[in-house]
Amino acid sequence: MAAQIIDGKAISAQIRAEVRERATAVSPPPHLHAVLVGDEPASALYVRNKERACAESGIRSTIHALPASTTQKELLALIAELNRDDDCDGILVQSPPPSHIDEDQIILAISPWKDIDCFHPENVGLLVAGKPRFQPCTPAGVQQLLLRSGVDPAGKHVVVVGRSNIVGKPMANILLQKKPGANATVTICHTGTRDLGHFTRQADILIAAAGRPKMINREMVKPGAAVIDVAMNLVADPTAKSGKRFVGDVDYEAVKQVAGWITPVPGGVGPMTIAILLQNTLTAAMLRGERR
Amino acid sequence: MAAQIIDGKAISAQIRAEVRERATAVSPPPHLHAVLVGDEPASALYVRNKERACAESGIRSTIHALPASTTQKELLALIAELNRDDDCDGILVQSPPPSHIDEDQIILAISPWKDIDCFHPENVGLLVAGKPRFQPCTPAGVQQLLLRSGVDPAGKHVVVVGRSNIVGKPMANILLQKKPGANATVTICHTGTRDLGHFTRQADILIAAAGRPKMINREMVKPGAAVIDVAMNLVADPTAKSGKRFVGDVDYEAVKQVAGWITPVPGGVGPMTIAILLQNTLTAAMLRGERR
Repeated sequence: MAAQIIDGKAISAQIRAEVRERATAVSPPPHLHAVLVGDEPASALYVRNKERACAESGIRSTIHALPASTTQKELLALIAELNRDDDCDGILVQSPPPSHIDEDQIILAISPWKDIDCFHPENVGLLVAGKPRFQPCTPAGVQQLLLRSGVDPAGKHVVVVGRSNIVGKPMANILLQKKPGANATVTICHTGTRDLGHFTRQADILIAAAGRPKMINREMVKPGAAVIDVAMNLVADPTAKSGKRFVGDVDYEAVKQVAGWITPVPGGVGPMTIAILLQNTLTAAMLRGERR
Repeated sequence: MAAQIIDGKAISAQIRAEVRERATAVSPPPHLHAVLVGDEPASALYVRNKERACAESGIRSTIHALPASTTQKELLALIAELNRDDDCDGILVQSPPPSHIDEDQIILAISPWKDIDCFHPENVGLLVAGKPRFQPCTPAGVQQLLLRSGVDPAGKHVVVVGRSNIVGKPMANILLQKKPGANATVTICHTGTRDLGHFTRQADILIAAAGRPKMINREMVKPGAAVIDVAMNLVADPTAKSGKRFVGDVDYEAVKQVAGWITPVPGGVGPMTIAILLQNTLTAAMLRGERR
């Protein structure tokens, strides 16, 4: 029996509608400030998409577009100003910044109360301790895909492939918590793992976030497992107009024959990240009174 | 063949000697401030042990003994004063404080630059990101026991049993890093895990930190595995003078027949925690110039 396809667009739309509804209770409405340094077209597109998603969810947004020549000091000065600004609830600096910018220092400079990407170490630490202020966007999006598809991680064996700071590590740290929607036994695999298939074949829930096209084949998946593909790998495709297309880490056509649930790429995890970002912006606005 | 016994006392003494040697290069010498609230005899003993260990390692220490009636506000005021004090490198508040104290708030109040227990969320987040400022004492102690016994976690399957904020979670987050002395495939098991033995039997390195006496029996251990017992469970023992004794989570006598390496309780992980605490105090002193 073929897998149930998890529709990330539909679930993202659900969450965004919930945010829109809840945002009406906040006055003034939540206000996101996006900082875009340089003129990378992909980054500019991401920021425009966030701006549009904000508008649709009743969240105000302001874009601070800075030239590629912006210095670290200038960027830090803008962040300090936004940290002080009472009419700024959430700050995001679109990644990646130009190579002369020290991104770690930028992340540390953003007030942990306005850190809607959940990248600041204080927020990562709170998440690990089971007392999150914000949710890491992509991993929390994956958790919502599972829960809203009827897949409860509790008591399941989750295998996460990939240990990035943005996906793999927070994903594992969310799902191992003693909490509803989590409480899974979690294994983290990565480039240092010997015999990856030995681990993936044990997974009730397999989360692929390694960035290696079609790394997960049919033989590596337990029949009936939920397979979540976080990756967006750009590969050559002579049949496509642009000559390339996005594929995930999972050999989708083959794996969907054995999996119980599967996410497509695109249209699976991709649309979720922005939904959680909007949720975080709403949370940040609701925490206005507690900022220090 | 019986397991090699890992001698925590000897390895702790080695590390403390290294700290003593390195501390001579710091002027003025590192200065630890320990805060003890109330008159719990066990807590008082721990603080005295830390004081003595400091003295032996060339680290100055000051104990702030406060009555059990100390309020949250008074404790926060002392911490604020120690945060400002240039002659204070490391602050530890002996746990557990009296029940009317909100320990989470205390942890957040300690400057992340003086947080030698590595409990502050900012330091937990830096650890998870692979850029630690300090090391969580017990998990880093376990890592040193392994490395100094010739057990390199790289490429191994580590199974951690227990997900406490002090041991299980930071243990997993240390050993999965892409770094020398780590780079393991890590599984975290806990009370929500179904069929614990299924996981423990796969472990090349098994770290028991659940706080359940003799939970790990011989059948749950892969022959030749390194077995690290973090727990100190106080159990009744009519043959002991005091009527009780400490046992770990591992059935030591049985498991040492199959394991490749094993830590005794006491004398295994126990002595390591304080060694890493001294290391952290030295680190804190070396970071004086960077404090913000």
